[in-house]
Amino acid sequence: MCRWLAYGGDPIAMDTLLFRPCNSLIRQSLYAQRAPAPTNGDGFGLGWYGAIEKPGLYRDTMPAWNDANLRSLAEQIRSPLFFAHVRASTGPATARLNCHPFRYGRYLFMHNGQIGGWAEVRQEIERSIRKELYRYREGSTDSEAFFYLLLGNGLAEDPERAFARTVRQVTDIMRAEGVADPFRMTAAVTDGRRIHAVRWSSDGRSPTLFHGNGGRIDCKGSMVEFGDGGGCTIVLSEPLDEDAAHWAEVPEGSFLTAEAGRVTVTPFHPR
Amino acid sequence: MCRWLAYGGDPIAMDTLLFRPCNSLIRQSLYAQRAPAPTNGDGFGLGWYGAIEKPGLYRDTMPAWNDANLRSLAEQIRSPLFFAHVRASTGPATARLNCHPFRYGRYLFMHNGQIGGWAEVRQEIERSIRKELYRYREGSTDSEAFFYLLLGNGLAEDPERAFARTVRQVTDIMRAEGVADPFRMTAAVTDGRRIHAVRWSSDGRSPTLFHGNGGRIDCKGSMVEFGDGGGCTIVLSEPLDEDAAHWAEVPEGSFLTAEAGRVTVTPFHPR
Amino acid sequence: MCRWLAYGGDPIAMDTLLFRPCNSLIRQSLYAQRAPAPTNGDGFGLGWYGAIEKPGLYRDTMPAWNDANLRSLAEQIRSPLFFAHVRASTGPATARLNCHPFRYGRYLFMHNGQIGGWAEVRQEIERSIRKELYRYREGSTDSEAFFYLLLGNGLAEDPERAFARTVRQVTDIMRAEGVADPFRMTAAVTDGRRIHAVRWSSDGRSPTLFHGNGGRIDCKGSMVEFGDGGGCTIVLSEPLDEDAAHWAEVPEGSFLTAEAGRVTVTPFHPR
Amino acid sequence: MCRWLAYGGDPIAMDTLLFRPCNSLIRQSLYAQRAPAPTNGDGFGLGWYGAIEKPGLYRDTMPAWNDANLRSLAEQIRSPLFFAHVRASTGPATARLNCHPFRYGRYLFMHNGQIGGWAEVRQEIERSIRKELYRYREGSTDSEAFFYLLLGNGLAEDPERAFARTVRQVTDIMRAEGVADPFRMTAAVTDGRRIHAVRWSSDGRSPTLFHGNGGRIDCKGSMVEFGDGGGCTIVLSEPLDEDAAHWAEVPEGSFLTAEAGRVTVTPFHPR
Repeated sequence: MCRWLAYGGDPIAMDTLLFRPCNSLIRQSLYAQRAPAPTNGDGFGLGWYGAIEKPGLYRDTMPAWNDANLRSLAEQIRSPLFFAHVRASTGPATARLNCHPFRYGRYLFMHNGQIGGWAEVRQEIERSIRKELYRYREGSTDSEAFFYLLLGNGLAEDPERAFARTVRQVTDIMRAEGVADPFRMTAAVTDGRRIHAVRWSSDGRSPTLFHGNGGRIDCKGSMVEFGDGGGCTIVLSEPLDEDAAHWAEVPEGSFLTAEAGRVTVTPFHPR
Repeated sequence: MCRWLAYGGDPIAMDTLLFRPCNSLIRQSLYAQRAPAPTNGDGFGLGWYGAIEKPGLYRDTMPAWNDANLRSLAEQIRSPLFFAHVRASTGPATARLNCHPFRYGRYLFMHNGQIGGWAEVRQEIERSIRKELYRYREGSTDSEAFFYLLLGNGLAEDPERAFARTVRQVTDIMRAEGVADPFRMTAAVTDGRRIHAVRWSSDGRSPTLFHGNGGRIDCKGSMVEFGDGGGCTIVLSEPLDEDAAHWAEVPEGSFLTAEAGRVTVTPFHPR
Repeated sequence: MCRWLAYGGDPIAMDTLLFRPCNSLIRQSLYAQRAPAPTNGDGFGLGWYGAIEKPGLYRDTMPAWNDANLRSLAEQIRSPLFFAHVRASTGPATARLNCHPFRYGRYLFMHNGQIGGWAEVRQEIERSIRKELYRYREGSTDSEAFFYLLLGNGLAEDPERAFARTVRQVTDIMRAEGVADPFRMTAAVTDGRRIHAVRWSSDGRSPTLFHGNGGRIDCKGSMVEFGDGGGCTIVLSEPLDEDAAHWAEVPEGSFLTAEAGRVTVTPFHPR
Repeated sequence: MCRWLAYGGDPIAMDTLLFRPCNSLIRQSLYAQRAPAPTNGDGFGLGWYGAIEKPGLYRDTMPAWNDANLRSLAEQIRSPLFFAHVRASTGPATARLNCHPFRYGRYLFMHNGQIGGWAEVRQEIERSIRKELYRYREGSTDSEAFFYLLLGNGLAEDPERAFARTVRQVTDIMRAEGVADPFRMTAAVTDGRRIHAVRWSSDGRSPTLFHGNGGRIDCKGSMVEFGDGGGCTIVLSEPLDEDAAHWAEVPEGSFLTAEAGRVTVTPFHPR
């Protein structure tokens, strides 16, 4: 189980959310509160949009709490849209190329969860990735494979349908291979403008997902501060502070879209 | 706070103690039980004696639970005397050269604890290291500095006296600089034949220290197995399994010597 | 292009060949003499046989010339059979899991060369790996994929036939995909007893391969010393010293077997 | 011997100078042309000024040519003043904390060269660092020590005098310790507004130093393009392209100041 965070809105310094709140994402790398295991120390990643269409990507195998480079980048870089992820491996090795987010063209993708029976279904799933996308696969995680399926299933045209198709494709292969373990995912993808997130699982036990919204977002002391009005959204695995008014839980079986600070959550039942 | 383990006796594969017991040292890197904080993920190190006088040294900045190289070395290498350490930094950066054990000639040293007010006393302590030793200092930790003081204070001739002198030297400097924070240490040193360990603190709150002894040591299931007779000793921060009969706690203010499986524990009150 | 070395014979400390000769493998990581580019700084690996059937494996992404751990391991570990490799990437990322040698059960494999048009043929080649082997694939290199094909093509039963089959399988896929670039390889594999090496290419321009043989092997000054008699073999990309009498070049299109210090070289023309 | 580059002027994407020219700094990490040894693969670093006074810092131990993170940061980050450095160690270990540039407050410092007899003079030089600065020293290089001396010798008030004092301080200690080896340096420091660089050595053989100036700087093909007018300056170890008109060599024994695109070079003879 991993922890992740996506932000979209007015440009802010990334450390505002990554380092400063009491339950910041970096704090979650050491002491996650709503995860089965507290430690997410098997690498981390940061993807952000800036002056060019292609997002920046910084991933490393150190625990996030330990990386002076990450702290400096988070202090320096202001971005209107960024993804950050701290990893707890479910098997595949700790390596930069297995760290989230994954990038393809202008897209970023990150994930918390697991495709059950991955060792059984992996080869068939990889066969299903379009050849022109497959050449970019670098690692061995289920998450990266899911992303390339998603891209091939029309992510650019209709993200919700692409997610539904990909979930069906994966669960079909799992069934064909006789996998009994569940498929659980809480994933996010963006093209640099809209953030889409999915909370779904085959057994009704997907990892948690929350969002918070408001005007200009800052961090005061150890609490996140949401300005009046709207325009800024945080989508994330678990709240950054203890003020329940700041965070709305996204229910199991949901598809979330955040664009220009407007969040919609609709039921997501691909099967 | 860190966790460490020293073994001396019949040659054994290092994974017998590092990976296999239920509360193995590697397990402690993720979930230490008797430490103020459970995670010791800021690097690790392994020092061992083999065919040559100079011990081997393997240190890295990955968390120990994450390092496939460490697992392979621990499986392969059989050694009659080895030190292993998982680090939780008290400040100095995560870097190989700040990882324990430290090596000089045929000596290895490792430490769990902290010289209070390190930033205040560091320069004066480093001035006190003998010039011919100082050139080998690579990092910025209090532990490495203590080791070079210890070497200069006659470690080769009389280890207990060298520890006492060094503790006095450090506490003198702390007092001169007006440091109020305590000096706490649970340290081990070896020349490849004898293991010495100290549990001491200026405020009576030093980190825990245990030892276990017996004949040929193995691991059965998740429990350590001590054969009849003697000859083998484990000195360590916290027990490797839950059988209280296996482990004796070393009291605060003690100096331990283990040689050829015989352990002596004497009071250590340098001031 | 990479550089590699395989040793079989009386147990020797690995630094005898890795660090001490004037053109040692570690020297070749910085200044290879017979390679198109001199620098092999994109990671390295070491595999060796010791007390247990499964070989040890130590791989890292630092340049080999830079890694204090590698130096210490090479000094400490004596082995009757070891593989060492310094990498110059032909594309796939620098990551431990893309470093050679690759290990499966009691086997080690390493490679210098390139399957032409890898991005074109990769997915089809990966499809051809047996499912029960595919789950162990961690990286994205052509070399690791070739190894899993080789294992599935009967490496355990008949290594030469397995190599021939695998080369045909790869070249068939290359032709089907319309790849014009050549397939060049200088590879080695071992089960812990025999070392097999192949020098072959589709265009007659495979990387160099040499071997040296004699009794007890040591290093005197910066020259390799071969004792009288036999029993010890080095198979490698380029000579470790400048004494031409020490090294025999293996011609293009050859299959080499070294066992108990006896070396046979036979023509290898899989197509 | 290392290679470095400093830029000041209109904000540009850092890859314009780090990756794109034919003899870009990253190219120099693999094939430096004017250095005694071509490979600068012992880590690298990047420091830059952005939205806050404190500069950003990204350093790692991978060779610069190998680091996907560095490429992404260089593409994304536009900065009006940045320092970049590729390291070839003269002894001290490869570790992030031994990589240049070094940072203190709003200052960055980087260096190519060596204080002769460093092992002999180190302890005395470190004693000479002001206590309130010494606590920030993390590594063991002569370069980092020089920087802390420089800060203590009035860098903020009068950079040229601070350099002269520090050079005298170092050479005094070298003489007192009987060091015969030379002290050679080509160093740069900045407060975020002005860049100062020194080329000096005790034996008249300091590493090369160049500068290039013009209006808006870009990269066209593999050549650097200097726009008409002025305002932009590159100070660096060796030219980025082969157009001799682009680069002026700074003579031995010089102090360079670049501010707002105006470069002055004056003799520097501290003794």
